[in-house]
Amino acid sequence: MARETDCVFCKIVAVQSTASVVYEDDQAICFLDVNPLSSGHLLIVTREHFTKLTEVSSSVASKIGSLLPVAGRALLDVTGAGGFNVLNNEGAVAGQLVNHVHFHLIPRFDGDGLGYCWAPGSYKEGETMRLVTAYQKAFAERC
Amino acid sequence: MARETDCVFCKIVAVQSTASVVYEDDQAICFLDVNPLSSGHLLIVTREHFTKLTEVSSSVASKIGSLLPVAGRALLDVTGAGGFNVLNNEGAVAGQLVNHVHFHLIPRFDGDGLGYCWAPGSYKEGETMRLVTAYQKAFAERC
Repeated sequence: MARETDCVFCKIVAVQSTASVVYEDDQAICFLDVNPLSSGHLLIVTREHFTKLTEVSSSVASKIGSLLPVAGRALLDVTGAGGFNVLNNEGAVAGQLVNHVHFHLIPRFDGDGLGYCWAPGSYKEGETMRLVTAYQKAFAERC
Repeated sequence: MARETDCVFCKIVAVQSTASVVYEDDQAICFLDVNPLSSGHLLIVTREHFTKLTEVSSSVASKIGSLLPVAGRALLDVTGAGGFNVLNNEGAVAGQLVNHVHFHLIPRFDGDGLGYCWAPGSYKEGETMRLVTAYQKAFAERC
């Protein structure tokens, strides 16, 4: 299983660094974010070192996917939050701070001031069709 | 397969409403968000009606998980973005607007003004241990 010696999350997986681990299996580990956006903020992290989500193998991505509802139910139970956000940041431009793929589960409470910046736009004429054609081709090449 | 007659995403799945569909399989459908936060903003939606992520079956959640890297690679290819965010909002308090589970893939570009509100905190003494104990119990009951 690939590891990076300087990766803070690989060190947690290898028990070379401590973390508040709440769950682990053969492909994933889940621990508290040490700098929580709200109380109970969880990270779901691959055991294997993948820098980004786009590098993750299908089997590991499936496992992470199956963990999300489980972790979400645990989060609601433990924190009493009214909901939560699941967030993955791919790339520095998207806010990725640790170069080992991880999903945030962020408990949400009324008036907490958290959430994604929501400023929806719209497409100019022709732009939608151009994107659909390009995306259909890109998915067909990968599925 | 469960459907809700008044659900806008169920109508897209049933082809009773149009959408800019770029990919579909037996468990998921992927289309452009009609109110994009950035050009190429995708939604990955379960074919079956689940109101929230915490209701999604393990097999469907696995499928959605396995699609995320594929969709992410397609997104980077099509949009030329430097990265992206994956976002799921569970519950109105977390920003969920359509009550049919969906994952946003939001292309990110330098200076786009998007992203999650990031104001990290810290835990008071004893709070971490209380959370770890409660989370370990909650995961053990569900895994």
